[in-house]
Amino acid sequence: MTIVVGYVPKAEGRAALRRAAEEARLRRTKLVVLNSHRGGRDLDAEENARSEAELARVGEELAAAGVEHEVRQLVRGLEPAEDLIAVAEEESADFIVIGLRRRSPVGKLILGSNAQRILLDAPCPVLAVKAEED
Amino acid sequence: MTIVVGYVPKAEGRAALRRAAEEARLRRTKLVVLNSHRGGRDLDAEENARSEAELARVGEELAAAGVEHEVRQLVRGLEPAEDLIAVAEEESADFIVIGLRRRSPVGKLILGSNAQRILLDAPCPVLAVKAEED
Repeated sequence: MTIVVGYVPKAEGRAALRRAAEEARLRRTKLVVLNSHRGGRDLDAEENARSEAELARVGEELAAAGVEHEVRQLVRGLEPAEDLIAVAEEESADFIVIGLRRRSPVGKLILGSNAQRILLDAPCPVLAVKAEED
Repeated sequence: MTIVVGYVPKAEGRAALRRAAEEARLRRTKLVVLNSHRGGRDLDAEENARSEAELARVGEELAAAGVEHEVRQLVRGLEPAEDLIAVAEEESADFIVIGLRRRSPVGKLILGSNAQRILLDAPCPVLAVKAEED
């Protein structure tokens, strides 16, 4: 049994990770932290360095909290939804945790296409967590 | 701490309920089973009778499984998303469980508007479960 969490170094990614770590502790299951990037031209070097530094810190925090875990950074030309679903299948995940942005005050009723794909196509339930900060 | 589950007497509602009951047992929290209907002209008498019979059975099964619970049937002119969010706020729910239909083979990438509203506007995380049967 494994929990897979989609992580981005933003408020919604941190909220998802926090909740996923709580769930992993509660169930005593392994946590797979997945940071996925399409790569190519979209990959900003500075953002990538920040992302790596944050992932290293995430790994240390999970270790300190006694959560069995694995941090994977995938840059293989796939959309985050595809990577997340592939890893969830590979791990026979118990569920996936994703972060959602709170919509803006004028916000329209639209969920991002990655979030929709994960919700609809994941082989397991999906826990959607909203960012507390923004 | 409470878990609130949106229930409809369909495959996706049953899948959501099954998972919600497991989560309530794991956490030893109360489960609120909510069946919401706008009412009015949409309310089909036969469907309503089926729904009530199924809710009674649901209550018995939860009692037999030792899950502290409450079954509420709301018919007050609100959309299911509004009722579910209102009850989650009232109960300071730990999370909401909803069922999603698997998309059809030709299925377009569209989540129902009720599901989107719950995911975006709920005061707590939302666990989305897909129907196993259909």
